[in-house]
Amino acid sequence: MPVLRIGYLLAFVPIAIAVNWFAPQRHFAAFAAASAAIVPLAAELGKTTELLAEKTSAGVGGLLNATFGNAAEMIIGLTALRSGLGDVVKASITGSIIGNLLLVLGAALLAGGLRHPTQTFNAAAARSRTTMLLLAATALIAPAAYNHLAGGRAAAGENSFSFEVSIVLILSYLLGLVFTLRTHRELFAGHTAEVGAAEEEDEASPRVFWLLATLAAASALIAWMSEILVGSIQPVARQCGMTEVFVGVIVVAMVGNSAEQSTAVLMARKDRMDLALSIAIGSSIQIALFVAPLLVLASYLVAPAPINLVLTPAEVLAVTFSVVIAGQICGDGESNWFEGAQLLAVYAIVSLLFYFLPAR
Amino acid sequence: MPVLRIGYLLAFVPIAIAVNWFAPQRHFAAFAAASAAIVPLAAELGKTTELLAEKTSAGVGGLLNATFGNAAEMIIGLTALRSGLGDVVKASITGSIIGNLLLVLGAALLAGGLRHPTQTFNAAAARSRTTMLLLAATALIAPAAYNHLAGGRAAAGENSFSFEVSIVLILSYLLGLVFTLRTHRELFAGHTAEVGAAEEEDEASPRVFWLLATLAAASALIAWMSEILVGSIQPVARQCGMTEVFVGVIVVAMVGNSAEQSTAVLMARKDRMDLALSIAIGSSIQIALFVAPLLVLASYLVAPAPINLVLTPAEVLAVTFSVVIAGQICGDGESNWFEGAQLLAVYAIVSLLFYFLPAR
Amino acid sequence: MPVLRIGYLLAFVPIAIAVNWFAPQRHFAAFAAASAAIVPLAAELGKTTELLAEKTSAGVGGLLNATFGNAAEMIIGLTALRSGLGDVVKASITGSIIGNLLLVLGAALLAGGLRHPTQTFNAAAARSRTTMLLLAATALIAPAAYNHLAGGRAAAGENSFSFEVSIVLILSYLLGLVFTLRTHRELFAGHTAEVGAAEEEDEASPRVFWLLATLAAASALIAWMSEILVGSIQPVARQCGMTEVFVGVIVVAMVGNSAEQSTAVLMARKDRMDLALSIAIGSSIQIALFVAPLLVLASYLVAPAPINLVLTPAEVLAVTFSVVIAGQICGDGESNWFEGAQLLAVYAIVSLLFYFLPAR
Repeated sequence: MPVLRIGYLLAFVPIAIAVNWFAPQRHFAAFAAASAAIVPLAAELGKTTELLAEKTSAGVGGLLNATFGNAAEMIIGLTALRSGLGDVVKASITGSIIGNLLLVLGAALLAGGLRHPTQTFNAAAARSRTTMLLLAATALIAPAAYNHLAGGRAAAGENSFSFEVSIVLILSYLLGLVFTLRTHRELFAGHTAEVGAAEEEDEASPRVFWLLATLAAASALIAWMSEILVGSIQPVARQCGMTEVFVGVIVVAMVGNSAEQSTAVLMARKDRMDLALSIAIGSSIQIALFVAPLLVLASYLVAPAPINLVLTPAEVLAVTFSVVIAGQICGDGESNWFEGAQLLAVYAIVSLLFYFLPAR
Repeated sequence: MPVLRIGYLLAFVPIAIAVNWFAPQRHFAAFAAASAAIVPLAAELGKTTELLAEKTSAGVGGLLNATFGNAAEMIIGLTALRSGLGDVVKASITGSIIGNLLLVLGAALLAGGLRHPTQTFNAAAARSRTTMLLLAATALIAPAAYNHLAGGRAAAGENSFSFEVSIVLILSYLLGLVFTLRTHRELFAGHTAEVGAAEEEDEASPRVFWLLATLAAASALIAWMSEILVGSIQPVARQCGMTEVFVGVIVVAMVGNSAEQSTAVLMARKDRMDLALSIAIGSSIQIALFVAPLLVLASYLVAPAPINLVLTPAEVLAVTFSVVIAGQICGDGESNWFEGAQLLAVYAIVSLLFYFLPAR
Repeated sequence: MPVLRIGYLLAFVPIAIAVNWFAPQRHFAAFAAASAAIVPLAAELGKTTELLAEKTSAGVGGLLNATFGNAAEMIIGLTALRSGLGDVVKASITGSIIGNLLLVLGAALLAGGLRHPTQTFNAAAARSRTTMLLLAATALIAPAAYNHLAGGRAAAGENSFSFEVSIVLILSYLLGLVFTLRTHRELFAGHTAEVGAAEEEDEASPRVFWLLATLAAASALIAWMSEILVGSIQPVARQCGMTEVFVGVIVVAMVGNSAEQSTAVLMARKDRMDLALSIAIGSSIQIALFVAPLLVLASYLVAPAPINLVLTPAEVLAVTFSVVIAGQICGDGESNWFEGAQLLAVYAIVSLLFYFLPAR
């Protein structure tokens, strides 16, 4: 039973809470414990989502998973906003997008490809997602470009521009939901032939209510752990001689994406590529088109000062690389292990870029 | 009879002329009247082109329409050149390219997609056009890059470079005509099966001579109206608190593209997607590969000082976004309403960018 | 017999050596003689490779050819490294990549397309190569971006970053060899049906040993001639009023690529497009993913000071243009003469850019 398994894994959670509470200066311990707590929670979340996804179509299952995976990112973002850490919010948005497109997708294609020589998926759905990624990339490049081009003359325009771009993005995202869940849902319905194969290891499939409850509980605990994580970024970065941006974009995002990571790899190993892609790419789309602009709008209510969508040039470059190469790899409806390896190579290059870039 | 219909619409033309002549300081009135005169003229132009296109193949019909649509842009450009308004010329070129690729194509895909769930078109022809767009984008990015990289050391080289790039572009365009109209014209021949369906609303199809005469007359009147429009850009921009670049790139281009706009939407509603695409994309190609370089060459004869192809960074970015996303959407030979909506979203983002950018 | 034919062509080689030895100040003569010597050698290399390729599959034949073609580039690079000419190394890497993707590929598609209306090739293999090109582009853009973003604060990080990116690239290249030659070699196996057609003009097919010996001898002589060429770049550039970068990126690369040039055109005329593409694109991939990073690593042993992968902005732009447009043209598995003409047009624009850019 999933609920019992989570009960067992909860052991990791109180350790993080205890360290954070009783030894608040032990930042690295809190950071490590919270990470250790998130990973198995994320695995449980993935498993539960899989069970739930088997009761629905691949498209809806992917959406479910992306939503629950990103609920955590949303809560992390809101926490960071309240503390006035706008740069951390933007670094975690960037890290989540490139982490999903390069690390999660790369690991899934590599793991799946090592077991199955060539894996196929719905090319029309993949191309449709790539188009949404391009829209997202445009929307994240434009504010940085505005900032660069307007120079010092437009501090006010910067926030207005981001605000209105955010509204365009949220409208696009809502239209995208109408498109994927209503008018063209058959386009995103994956192959359901191999569902039976996954059944073998499951005793009795639990009821939908319990699955949903487990999803919600796991997401909430991940969010709590993530808060501890975010709070320790600055001291841990100083301790390890890394920049805060590197820790935010690479380390935190890697932990935050572990839910998507484990589920996408699991699905790819089972050759359920439509679900694996809808998790990895769908998650990036949701963060870029929905979570990011929602955080901008929320910052007017919650944050000490409103934030904007202006990413740093390195962040813009990393997002552009990720979208272009993920689009190229997914556009033909086929994948293999080498495509996964290449995504991981680009991730390595981008990580090195953030690692070597000096703090401003 | 098309000629009579134009006679009825002529009522809008003299108003613009009268305002311009008798009340030259009423800039906003002239601007509005000229716009109002252009829109029905453009609709007539579209209808006539459609009738003519039905007598030929979709490919030739699209070329005809793009030519007549862009005759106006050409005349506007020459007028602006004579007045020494090089920046207006470049803004109207940029605006016309992004307007066709984002606004016209987006509106056509959205309007067509709301009536037909999935629309298909000749993917090979669409990809061929995308390649031409990439060549055009390269040619428009290179001079701006040269200008940026050479810094202050190369004011002379700037014009020579643009001059020679212009010659490369015109040669490419002429080769493209050989390709689309001679050696590979079967690639661009659209489906002609549904031509019969359009016939129903027409009484007696007029003779080709009258159709051509109507096309020419409508184009000439559009050109005249456009001149009034261009002359009032600067005062209207000041009056409305917008920058001249915004008015040139967005407002004027929107009116100037209304011919392509109405025809492309009409064709998409009738599911004649090959014609709709050849209008929207063909028009962009013609402007980038032919009209723009021809204006550069003409500036040596007509203008007080020669102009070059150096676009502003914001213009370069807008052209790049448009080409990449239009290429992605057209590459697979299928479209739906959401793809149209996404093109419009990118257009909204680009428009906001030009709106918020302060004048230099 | 190929060996005899090379004996006849050797006449061009001693002239270059003699000029270089007895009249070392006649730089232009040495430059011209070395170029004249390389071109027929390259043709012989191409012919021999073709004979050898006919004994194997198109994929392996292409790899053979790319290896022998790039052995020369590798030796030129090492020579330039030893002389401390890091910028020449990087210019020749850039020139070789854009020369193969634009000039060689463009000439092949044009020449083949003029004889065969539409030529088809393995689209999956072409897309796989495009993905490797994107990885290569990412890896060549990232160090330049780092350099630009870190500003003056990171002279040390620059070399470390390039060093680690180089290791990522070489690992990717080795994985790519496993992929193309082992796990997915059937993906890269071209059509072998038309092999018989090429046989007609050959008397008796020579033994593999002699073919390999001829390949090695031709490559060695090309390398020697190339050294004379490289040594005369600086004085020839000064003499002709060109910048060294233009001579390195355009002139030298054109001569250095003539092996790939002649073979790719020959193959395209015979409609063996899979071989033509694997030569043109495979060569670019090998240079970007293998030769370039190997030269960076070698510079720590051989050069007076280690070099890095930081290209100039113009070089980055040229590589980006080339990869994007070559990827677009090859992605659909079909080509025609106009696609070749467009690649040549982009090459013309890029050449003009390097020609007009003033030296720093």
